[in-house]
Amino acid sequence: MTSHAFDDAVRLTRNAGDSFTGATSPAYANMVGPFGGITAAVLLNGALQHPQRLGDPIALTANYASPIADGAYTLDARPVRTNRSTQHWVITLSQADGIAATATAVFATRRETWSAPEAAMPAGLPPPETLESASTVGRPEWTRRYDMRFVDGHAAATLDGIEQPHSESRLWVRDEPARALDFASLASLCDIFFPRVFVRRRRRVPAGTVTMTVFFHADAALLAAQGDRHVLACARALAFRNGYFDQSAEIWSDHGQLLASTHQMVYFRE
Amino acid sequence: MTSHAFDDAVRLTRNAGDSFTGATSPAYANMVGPFGGITAAVLLNGALQHPQRLGDPIALTANYASPIADGAYTLDARPVRTNRSTQHWVITLSQADGIAATATAVFATRRETWSAPEAAMPAGLPPPETLESASTVGRPEWTRRYDMRFVDGHAAATLDGIEQPHSESRLWVRDEPARALDFASLASLCDIFFPRVFVRRRRRVPAGTVTMTVFFHADAALLAAQGDRHVLACARALAFRNGYFDQSAEIWSDHGQLLASTHQMVYFRE
Repeated sequence: MTSHAFDDAVRLTRNAGDSFTGATSPAYANMVGPFGGITAAVLLNGALQHPQRLGDPIALTANYASPIADGAYTLDARPVRTNRSTQHWVITLSQADGIAATATAVFATRRETWSAPEAAMPAGLPPPETLESASTVGRPEWTRRYDMRFVDGHAAATLDGIEQPHSESRLWVRDEPARALDFASLASLCDIFFPRVFVRRRRRVPAGTVTMTVFFHADAALLAAQGDRHVLACARALAFRNGYFDQSAEIWSDHGQLLASTHQMVYFRE
Repeated sequence: MTSHAFDDAVRLTRNAGDSFTGATSPAYANMVGPFGGITAAVLLNGALQHPQRLGDPIALTANYASPIADGAYTLDARPVRTNRSTQHWVITLSQADGIAATATAVFATRRETWSAPEAAMPAGLPPPETLESASTVGRPEWTRRYDMRFVDGHAAATLDGIEQPHSESRLWVRDEPARALDFASLASLCDIFFPRVFVRRRRRVPAGTVTMTVFFHADAALLAAQGDRHVLACARALAFRNGYFDQSAEIWSDHGQLLASTHQMVYFRE
């Protein structure tokens, strides 16, 4: 049995102490360097694989400091504070010319408490099996690692330059081939959205994520219940201003549970 | 002329290299340790005051690793990567027993581009001068450093234990006494909301922020235009689940410009 491309791409070999070695995977290549989602997953994986890990991820912030060159990298995943039920991490990804990415993560052991949803999954959307998989022709390699089925806001579909009133996209998505969801693959999924500026302006401009935060609402049991079925991913922006815009998104289980919410700031030109 | 309590609270003395010394301020005391907003401002200030600083803040993630004891702390603010127009920071706040808070920040020089709002400030709200300042009687000391005028969702006003359908709060707020807004005070403002679980359940339970991300949509010119007038602050949650909930909020200028958006994960019990 061969391993899934995702597992190959986030694999780390532990050196001494907090140090790990990994390498970029051509399967998740973006236009320049790897897909940001896989980098977030690798950063998180440093904490997930660390022998001192406590509990499960609650939050991750990944910062994209410079393009990552094809090839090997060193990951330093340091548990800077371990409390009774929470643990704080500082993580860096380095290559020959210095630090290329940084992250902080919060892990925790959860306990059962009063729980309640507040936001609701958008209702009345067509289920994934009634929608076509988006074409990946002419798209970066990483897009072939996901099955994306757009309900609306498919940036790549229309690039006529006519500015839209909003930048919302809604799509069903899962790993391709299907793979049971876990914390690392959920972190990666949080970055599968095309830049909001493409959707809003219906044109491509140079753009790249500079920082992404992921909040893990799902615990391990909720992830296990989702398995490898499609999740619903919804993204929008609040404001575009002088070179930067934000993106807020939610990842919903197909039973309407919020699995993750995620927020990023994105650089753009023009 | 005496300095503003905010400036006293975020003041840092530079040691060698990336190291600074500061101290907690009783003026911003919370129930345990300092108000999280002032800690975020102190962490950001390490980068703001650093001689190698490039540009202005785009994003800040502050992680609250353990309670900060009253007294001195050491801040390490390290510019881990400086590119042509962006700069990445890793910042830690330490006391005798180890690291108490961590942060990452992205700074950038902005250039003029196509810009557009997407979200709109809530319309038709009463202006601040028509609303009463919230009482701070029996509240932690830091609440006296802000003038808060609630439009709705005032958690402290009603604690009858009747669960509400949502946790939204909207209020006008400024430093008290008034102080012209800057990046550090905007970061602090992002944490002035009472825990969403208080609003949703109309009861107090033990709760504390574990991580907060701030996206700075405002550039220096927009902050300068705001001066010391009230800003509109709107917060809500997406989900409460087994010990953690999220909070998303926006800070609007009184002319309807988005100054900051902010997201946090909060620990709670019961």
